[in-house]
Amino acid sequence: MPQSDKPEGDRPGIWIKETGSFFAGGRRVTLTGQPIQQVQVSQNAPTRTVDMNGENITGQCYVQYLRQEAPGFDTPLMFWHGGSMTGATWETTPDGRPGWQNFFLQAGFDTFVCDAVERGRAGWSPFPQIYTDAPVFRTLNDVWAMFRFGPPEGYSPDAAARRPFPGVRFPLGSLDGFGSQFVPRWTTHAEMTLAAYYDALRRTGPVWLIAHSQGGHLALDAAATHPEFFKGVVIIEPASVPRGTGRAARVPHLLIWGDNLNEHALWRSYRAKADQYADQLRSEGGEVEILDLPAEGITGNTHALMMDDNAEQIAARILDWIKKTG
Amino acid sequence: MPQSDKPEGDRPGIWIKETGSFFAGGRRVTLTGQPIQQVQVSQNAPTRTVDMNGENITGQCYVQYLRQEAPGFDTPLMFWHGGSMTGATWETTPDGRPGWQNFFLQAGFDTFVCDAVERGRAGWSPFPQIYTDAPVFRTLNDVWAMFRFGPPEGYSPDAAARRPFPGVRFPLGSLDGFGSQFVPRWTTHAEMTLAAYYDALRRTGPVWLIAHSQGGHLALDAAATHPEFFKGVVIIEPASVPRGTGRAARVPHLLIWGDNLNEHALWRSYRAKADQYADQLRSEGGEVEILDLPAEGITGNTHALMMDDNAEQIAARILDWIKKTG
Repeated sequence: MPQSDKPEGDRPGIWIKETGSFFAGGRRVTLTGQPIQQVQVSQNAPTRTVDMNGENITGQCYVQYLRQEAPGFDTPLMFWHGGSMTGATWETTPDGRPGWQNFFLQAGFDTFVCDAVERGRAGWSPFPQIYTDAPVFRTLNDVWAMFRFGPPEGYSPDAAARRPFPGVRFPLGSLDGFGSQFVPRWTTHAEMTLAAYYDALRRTGPVWLIAHSQGGHLALDAAATHPEFFKGVVIIEPASVPRGTGRAARVPHLLIWGDNLNEHALWRSYRAKADQYADQLRSEGGEVEILDLPAEGITGNTHALMMDDNAEQIAARILDWIKKTG
Repeated sequence: MPQSDKPEGDRPGIWIKETGSFFAGGRRVTLTGQPIQQVQVSQNAPTRTVDMNGENITGQCYVQYLRQEAPGFDTPLMFWHGGSMTGATWETTPDGRPGWQNFFLQAGFDTFVCDAVERGRAGWSPFPQIYTDAPVFRTLNDVWAMFRFGPPEGYSPDAAARRPFPGVRFPLGSLDGFGSQFVPRWTTHAEMTLAAYYDALRRTGPVWLIAHSQGGHLALDAAATHPEFFKGVVIIEPASVPRGTGRAARVPHLLIWGDNLNEHALWRSYRAKADQYADQLRSEGGEVEILDLPAEGITGNTHALMMDDNAEQIAARILDWIKKTG
């Protein structure tokens, strides 16, 4: 479909061949010894037997795709979200602007948006029966501090009383909408999640990967152990780094950092470790670019920089890097 | 975009203006008195404080949309999934065929695919701290019986030893893939879910609604209490019916039933109640059509008829009904 046939407008449309999804990874597990309950499953209906003994599928991830009629790139783009989040990260921003998935579709990529094991549409399994421990939940208070919207003491239930960092680019008027995106997470499932993601990648073939926070750490791990899956990895503020670089030097890396890292002890340490990791990769001949936004004079970006008011400009930088690297 | 400009092929492409999502409904709730934990949130990282005291958002649903450049219908289509399921219901079938969302996009509708409160990307809240009770989980054994793939005793962990009903149209070779789609559910959240769906409908404006099973029951409730939201409702095998018809006679209803209802006592009773409800609606002047597939000689359809081997033919019947009704 030639560009000239597209409707006029600032945002050209996206010519889709198919939208759909698949689940990858997972295994069967049999539950026994559970009490058989009589439950009113539907309102205005008699109780029915609910018997949780039997076979479950556990450990799968969810992958949603949009395939274009005439993609502009041979290699598709995959997205991995961060901790306590889902693929919704890459969709519309909390204040209603088109998200990165939309941007990269318009740029010509087929997209695969993943929900990690036990997040979002991937579903989760009973604990302590199948998962051994309990999940953790994120509060708005924690999100405020960890996403570097402001100092921890700057959070208030009263929106008018909040004290963010100066010039923060996140749409703080939509903080409740952002809070709606958070889901429970387990903290012990990194291996299970990577196993499911590898199964997904065996189906999709090699991808450009954009990964955020916990997903960024998983992506660094994946590049180190399975470089064949990646044309390149874009890592948004990784929460940690792998123990070793493995074969990661074969994969081009772009790391992206927002502002106010020095205002938060954890972020200071995450950044320092990631810089060490990047240095190690480079010493092994790896191609590593670090997009340090404040160092370029772009201030106010948060840990949710794909939702900040300059999100599209950052996406454009990623696109440039992909074009240059590919 | 005139039809003649579309690429050739059996499956014409879909010209998308934007893909995205929003969350609707929900409220803030403050959690107190929770123990403060030190948790290793990321691998290879030091433990960090996890404090679940503070504000949470609870009660929201998730709505994913695909808006077309040139929709063929003024009124968009919304999908509500069934119990223990998510919007993935409407995407690719477990054996990899395009799902109903794709069908209705190609037919020209803007689509809104919902995840109910506490399902999928909508996220869920801690129990017993915010939700008062525990969720229930679905086994493959339960799915086998309740989706009428075969008699309960026909299920076996060994696929080769399973004894389905004769001529069942569900792709039973992909039963594990179907099992991957199931998520935990609470059984006491119908009102909370409807409140969130109504908030979503206030944003979208009136829709054609396609709803499955538990979602079908919710849809009957919604049509009875909020008819202004619906041009028409398509109800796939509702698990129950409302106590009263309310103002539902203002909304055209299409009810769809698969095969082997008489082989399962619960389904026999669900069908009988739904027929009574339909009779009541008709006696009030309501426009109700019942698509009883076996009565038309179409046998073998299951409770997951949007995934059965004739799913596209059933979708085409729905499309005909919408065109006729609209």
